[in-house]
Amino acid sequence: MIPTITAFESSPDRGKGQARDMRVRWAFEEVGQPYEVRLVSFREMKEAAYRALQPFGQIPTYQEGDLALFESGAIVLHIAQHHAGLLPDDPHGRARAIMWMFAALNTVEPPIVEHEQAPYVERGQPWYGRERLSFLEDRIRVRLAELSRRLGDDGWLDGAFSAGDLMMVMVLRRLNGSGMLEEYPNLAAYVARGEARPAFQRAFAAQLAVFLAASGDR
Amino acid sequence: MIPTITAFESSPDRGKGQARDMRVRWAFEEVGQPYEVRLVSFREMKEAAYRALQPFGQIPTYQEGDLALFESGAIVLHIAQHHAGLLPDDPHGRARAIMWMFAALNTVEPPIVEHEQAPYVERGQPWYGRERLSFLEDRIRVRLAELSRRLGDDGWLDGAFSAGDLMMVMVLRRLNGSGMLEEYPNLAAYVARGEARPAFQRAFAAQLAVFLAASGDR
Repeated sequence: MIPTITAFESSPDRGKGQARDMRVRWAFEEVGQPYEVRLVSFREMKEAAYRALQPFGQIPTYQEGDLALFESGAIVLHIAQHHAGLLPDDPHGRARAIMWMFAALNTVEPPIVEHEQAPYVERGQPWYGRERLSFLEDRIRVRLAELSRRLGDDGWLDGAFSAGDLMMVMVLRRLNGSGMLEEYPNLAAYVARGEARPAFQRAFAAQLAVFLAASGDR
Repeated sequence: MIPTITAFESSPDRGKGQARDMRVRWAFEEVGQPYEVRLVSFREMKEAAYRALQPFGQIPTYQEGDLALFESGAIVLHIAQHHAGLLPDDPHGRARAIMWMFAALNTVEPPIVEHEQAPYVERGQPWYGRERLSFLEDRIRVRLAELSRRLGDDGWLDGAFSAGDLMMVMVLRRLNGSGMLEEYPNLAAYVARGEARPAFQRAFAAQLAVFLAASGDR
């Protein structure tokens, strides 16, 4: 049975592959699993029918037969556990790859999302401005410096490419265009290494096609 | 082999069980796995030796033989996967329990941590004040309302108690004392239900004993 995921009908990132369905698309491509996509509008995502599937009104969701999941981390882990290619066979290596997924989502991503959303959700608030943004950037730099030190000259976080790298690359590339990644050349190269993978490229093209179709820009 | 975790030598929460070692202690207690604790000072956590174990300089870590893990989510999941008691046997139920762990850590926790840290990290910043705190509280309420609606009258998030509930209860109880949980009586009851579990009580007593010993208050 081919799983179906949900994605934005019209992604606010204009096809840059920053919406969280990209993580799941990339995972599917790495393991060679075909998938279908159901596009949802912002209005639909907040309605009761969608919230029965995703209580927080977010994308992506994953449906396969009578299994329904949400949270991109959980979906990528589910795919990784049921197909070869995203987790090492060695149990300790497997545990460490999963650890890096959690580190990406719970330690590295929150300050990046906070910085990314500030111009939208905080604009107009009395505190919003350059000082606030610098504060948020410095908080990101703490994590980038720590991660950069750990990665060193390695290609991936723990030997071979894994779901941990997939998630970390996706989290770090939210900083594309900010100039911050370039302050840590090994992290910039790490993200480029992830983006160069054929599976990433296929996933990226698939989500971009959705944006171009929605915008009529073909 | 008995695993060893790290915890704060002197927890900033003064023994309220809010530090992330509590999640791991509770998981150990639920599955009946004895464990040892190595206490670390704030200074030690930022030194190179500790960062070799935990690149972000945080607690807890987990060591068992030659396996070393960090990130409370990854450690709890590792424990849950290797012992009975925290994940259902049914594969779909297992995937959903893991999904709730990710939802707790990646969707519900970030706005709570942001609000909790603001009085420490933002104090003295030009934007910090009542308005900023109200903004952060409202952001938390969005997630609480969504979770409250999903939980409804159920005892746990997906049938029997699981690692997903453990993590969600731990994340929600960061709000203890704020008055916000009480605005959603089913969530307040859910947290109380978690805290009433004998395994929670044993874990809580163990971390409190560390605080009392450190403070000389015995």
